[in-house]
Amino acid sequence: MIDPKNHCVIMAGGVGSRFWPMSKTAFPKQFHDVLGIGKSLLQMTFHRLNKIAPAENILVVTNSQYKGLVLEQLPEIKAEQVLCEPFMRNTAPCIAYANYHIQAKTDEANIIVAPSDHLILDEPGFLSTIGTALRRADNTNVLVTLGIKPSRPDTGYGYIQFEDHKEEAAASVKQVKTFTEKPNLELAEKFLDSGDFYWNSGIFIWGLKSIQQSFNTHLPDMTALFETHKSQFATDAEEDAIETIYAQSENISIDYGIMEKAQNVDVVLSDFGWSDLGTWGSLYTHMDKDDLGNAMATDQVLTYDSKNNLIHSPEDKLVVLHGIENVIVVDTGDVLMLCKRSDEQHIKRIVNDLKARNHPEV
Amino acid sequence: MIDPKNHCVIMAGGVGSRFWPMSKTAFPKQFHDVLGIGKSLLQMTFHRLNKIAPAENILVVTNSQYKGLVLEQLPEIKAEQVLCEPFMRNTAPCIAYANYHIQAKTDEANIIVAPSDHLILDEPGFLSTIGTALRRADNTNVLVTLGIKPSRPDTGYGYIQFEDHKEEAAASVKQVKTFTEKPNLELAEKFLDSGDFYWNSGIFIWGLKSIQQSFNTHLPDMTALFETHKSQFATDAEEDAIETIYAQSENISIDYGIMEKAQNVDVVLSDFGWSDLGTWGSLYTHMDKDDLGNAMATDQVLTYDSKNNLIHSPEDKLVVLHGIENVIVVDTGDVLMLCKRSDEQHIKRIVNDLKARNHPEV
Repeated sequence: MIDPKNHCVIMAGGVGSRFWPMSKTAFPKQFHDVLGIGKSLLQMTFHRLNKIAPAENILVVTNSQYKGLVLEQLPEIKAEQVLCEPFMRNTAPCIAYANYHIQAKTDEANIIVAPSDHLILDEPGFLSTIGTALRRADNTNVLVTLGIKPSRPDTGYGYIQFEDHKEEAAASVKQVKTFTEKPNLELAEKFLDSGDFYWNSGIFIWGLKSIQQSFNTHLPDMTALFETHKSQFATDAEEDAIETIYAQSENISIDYGIMEKAQNVDVVLSDFGWSDLGTWGSLYTHMDKDDLGNAMATDQVLTYDSKNNLIHSPEDKLVVLHGIENVIVVDTGDVLMLCKRSDEQHIKRIVNDLKARNHPEV
Repeated sequence: MIDPKNHCVIMAGGVGSRFWPMSKTAFPKQFHDVLGIGKSLLQMTFHRLNKIAPAENILVVTNSQYKGLVLEQLPEIKAEQVLCEPFMRNTAPCIAYANYHIQAKTDEANIIVAPSDHLILDEPGFLSTIGTALRRADNTNVLVTLGIKPSRPDTGYGYIQFEDHKEEAAASVKQVKTFTEKPNLELAEKFLDSGDFYWNSGIFIWGLKSIQQSFNTHLPDMTALFETHKSQFATDAEEDAIETIYAQSENISIDYGIMEKAQNVDVVLSDFGWSDLGTWGSLYTHMDKDDLGNAMATDQVLTYDSKNNLIHSPEDKLVVLHGIENVIVVDTGDVLMLCKRSDEQHIKRIVNDLKARNHPEV
């Protein structure tokens, strides 16, 4: 299934502050073995995509400060495959950067764009879905996104409303009607009931030419900036070019900048055990648990009379719980956080408080 | 108040397993700054006793493995003042060892025996009580013990029943009627109501000659053993002697071996803010707390919506609690323990489980 025409862009620039203190600026979520299985989320993402595209066609876009970490975790790739952003920017400039880097090497490419920090449990299902999406995108100008079958009225995700295709297409390929922002609970419940809404996964599949065309149409200013420096991509001058471009470029998401405006967007309806692992609660859902519902990332945890806890601790650290229930326990070595599971939405507040104090541990 | 006739014996051989994981075999409780005030319990004990006896008259009896720790924490004493026990023994052989070491240097000594890991808040009160006890013990054959005014029907302590003195004595000096083992709650309540029972502090004051006489009377076998090696004490041969003696000696407490049998025992009624800090709960009682009852040993603890917790963590570690109540949180770096405060009596069970697995962290 590996096709040399396939190129992948792994977006690995985020910080994941809802996963504090495991995820922090110095060592964000995507670099962590969050499930305790011996692979980081980035590594899992890379290995999954490496079944679709050859290693040399996989780019990782990240912040300069994480370049070393990426290369350490992915010995399969060369330094020039790590595209470094001089500062944090939203997904549109990030994707444009990758487009121009790929374009400097080839005109004929199908691109899979994927976040680095999501969990996908059913890899064959994922690969088969990507196959469907690639067949749809290949030699067309269609922008394809993957929609995830919603299992609950989650208010933390964007939703994609779809309708049956007017053209001939595979059964799972639908035409996008609207992209919606995160809904309130009432609306999310309506979405779920209607059956016409899937979660927006943030995974995109398109031909190089069609995405470049779409940038040109919907983000002409950003495109002009990149065009000015076009010849510098995939050369020693790329770093300078991107520094100049990023300083002037709009900071906008691909969803808002292109997907919501474009008319040529399809969604492939998917169900491959996906989670964005956006919160400790979503991680808890996906971890193995003992009979009493304790999820532990190491075997050095002893529990007595304790249930429904999530324990994330260093591998060599003995952790003992006695009479503890419904608590998220995260020990990173430098930081210990104990948070009632029902309070996890407040973790952002903790992070903000620490940032306000310029605390080094955020 | 320092009198060169005064000698002190600090018993520092215990492991304090109810204080796990802070207190463990490699670094027991007495060596910890449990209150976060910059001094270990051993150091506080030494400095308190150094107001009664010159530093060169203060002996520390401990296990060989802690000799380095003792000398590191107490630069005021010489290596030969640390009496090393080859293996753990109860208080009677420990006290006999100190007696023979002192006797090798002087015939005229009053001895204060004190555990190394107790807390005393009112030092002037303690010193004045010791003064009363020394006046009672000096030039008599009376064995003096300090009784602590009970503030609650604690079932974790032994009690001393007393009666008014038949001889002329200070008002706080009473004659001991009985020593009792740890009572059940009902009995402890009766003790408290009667007013005739004080807690057994494990602090003793006596003349060298009277305690030697008492050993001879009540523990003749142990005394015979020590007498055989008498000439080796306070010489280079002391270590060999004590190895031989300890291998053969009875393993018995001073309370059971002598105090409960002797007729010449007085108790000085005391009230100087004493705690044996036998449990995390008793430590909690003595720590400073914030408005919501959280006791923390460092200023690196942030609490949100959390109350009545005890947090013991490394000085440089950020600890964040959100929605946590009534939990003992102990992070030693190698071990993290979370224990509901009402479950703390089960800590011994945890320690036993770990011992059964030969876990290094006990």
